[in-house]
Amino acid sequence: MKKNTQVLLAARPQGAVKASDFRIDMNELPELQAGQLLIRNHFISLDPAMRGWMNAGTTYVRGVEIGEVMRAFTVGIVEVSKHPAFQPGDAVQGLLGVQEYAVSNGEHLLPAAGKQFPLSWSIGALGMPGLTAYFGLLDKGQPKAGETVLVSGAAGMVGSFVGQIAKLKGCKVIGIAGGAVKCRYLTEVLGFDSAIDYKNEDLHAALKTLAPEGVHIYFDNVGGEILDKALLHLAFGARVVLCGAISQYNEASYGGLKNYLKLVTARGTMSGIIVLDYFPRAAEAIRDLTQWLNDGSLQYKEHIVEGIEQFPAALNMLFTGENFGKLVLKIS
Amino acid sequence: MKKNTQVLLAARPQGAVKASDFRIDMNELPELQAGQLLIRNHFISLDPAMRGWMNAGTTYVRGVEIGEVMRAFTVGIVEVSKHPAFQPGDAVQGLLGVQEYAVSNGEHLLPAAGKQFPLSWSIGALGMPGLTAYFGLLDKGQPKAGETVLVSGAAGMVGSFVGQIAKLKGCKVIGIAGGAVKCRYLTEVLGFDSAIDYKNEDLHAALKTLAPEGVHIYFDNVGGEILDKALLHLAFGARVVLCGAISQYNEASYGGLKNYLKLVTARGTMSGIIVLDYFPRAAEAIRDLTQWLNDGSLQYKEHIVEGIEQFPAALNMLFTGENFGKLVLKIS
Repeated sequence: MKKNTQVLLAARPQGAVKASDFRIDMNELPELQAGQLLIRNHFISLDPAMRGWMNAGTTYVRGVEIGEVMRAFTVGIVEVSKHPAFQPGDAVQGLLGVQEYAVSNGEHLLPAAGKQFPLSWSIGALGMPGLTAYFGLLDKGQPKAGETVLVSGAAGMVGSFVGQIAKLKGCKVIGIAGGAVKCRYLTEVLGFDSAIDYKNEDLHAALKTLAPEGVHIYFDNVGGEILDKALLHLAFGARVVLCGAISQYNEASYGGLKNYLKLVTARGTMSGIIVLDYFPRAAEAIRDLTQWLNDGSLQYKEHIVEGIEQFPAALNMLFTGENFGKLVLKIS
Repeated sequence: MKKNTQVLLAARPQGAVKASDFRIDMNELPELQAGQLLIRNHFISLDPAMRGWMNAGTTYVRGVEIGEVMRAFTVGIVEVSKHPAFQPGDAVQGLLGVQEYAVSNGEHLLPAAGKQFPLSWSIGALGMPGLTAYFGLLDKGQPKAGETVLVSGAAGMVGSFVGQIAKLKGCKVIGIAGGAVKCRYLTEVLGFDSAIDYKNEDLHAALKTLAPEGVHIYFDNVGGEILDKALLHLAFGARVVLCGAISQYNEASYGGLKNYLKLVTARGTMSGIIVLDYFPRAAEAIRDLTQWLNDGSLQYKEHIVEGIEQFPAALNMLFTGENFGKLVLKIS
């Protein structure tokens, strides 16, 4: 029998995720039943939403149970199939968990992205984060050419796509990121009009200069103080889009929103994006994202960490901002 | 020459309004020029928005200057007219200020409400507060029959109309008010389904019982802690309508909003209502409100204070919750 390395939830974290919140186990794989298939995970997506999945109770999905394999989007290759719709060698993606191998009955499995792209892009540019950026900006934000779009967490996967897609739609784009390297990346590589280094610049002063007419769309990937400050710069009729992922962070990490009444005087609206709501429309996003990635108008950067045992440490990078690009765990 | 008693802004208040923030002056009326008319104010509307007008700077309107007559909606009778469109005896309403007499060039003056209603209703049920409730609920809130509507400040002018109009639209209505007397008024006189006395009841516990399915529309007249708590009870697809008036309160009076991320998981939206935006559609509201007031399906209660010199004390009643009904100052 094959052995399967699995990362199980061992404890509910208080605040930041610690290595001891997980337990790495080696278990025997069960024998495949008729209708099942065995997938070898090649890449595991590390997403901010995971922090919330570790909490007890249900928000938009139920929390992971203690002792259960940690939930994760993954992409892998079918090794054995007793399911008529799948063949060994098929590349598939799904919520297959932080583990080397997964047994599936085929439900909710999707084909991986086209062969012209690296396998790992299925859980990034062409996966949930890509769709979050696409529908969050285009459907919730409704950008119009000439409008000013502000995005926080702009060097992150979702933020970088939001900004680039906004540029493709003719908007002026301002990104907020931490540090000069990320800020230069936004303007020099991704084509943002400007970038604000929140660690070293005064956000209010920068926005007064860069967006004197105000911000028409603020796409929020971080919540808390940056969101609160951004509210004061809303233009008339502004849309604030809260990326669903932030609802899953450790609650203690943000204070209260003081400037929400700016929504009233600016005639703004604030709402959130939960990507699950857009699954029925995924094909629209995949079609456009594929085209933009192919023709080079959309740049995609990955940050790959190797080794399933690196999962707890890698997950924490998301919250400290250490990663630069879409964080992916490669199973060696 | 006639003397005109005027209430001037004497100082910008810090926190609550004090009598010394105003100065009462007696001034001679200027001689009427061609194209002008003289109006004797009979009733002055006391509105929460006034607190904001006393601040420096511009939000949706500019702040009142120190030494200027305090801004107010009033209704009165034309005494003298050198304007072709107005005759002595005409009942008119407008932003004529806290003063006994006003000289106007006719701009922005509107006829008072129909003669079947008391003159004072022009600045209440059929004035800005009535329109705020009407468009805030119907246009921003988009109520559907069978939905649950929660309204705070429910015994106030705007809140009481929001709740009653929601009932007319087939909604289940829960009001939040301070004290048993106001709460009984909501259920026994206004026909609300239930009322929560925020001074003596736990809002979370009450909402769990009264709205186990969540709240589809929350119409917020108070902001702060009650808004923050209400957010946790939003139903899927909920609309939060912030009454513009609250944006004008003393900012120090509310803490930060902690539960705004509930907007994400509930797929809710939050936006504000500024009644000025709906002036072009005022006739719609006046038509419906007139009908509902005439056929008795809309109850209206006034709280009348007499004497222009009572203005500072009366204004403060709005913020302490002492008034019970639409607060109006009658000029004796």
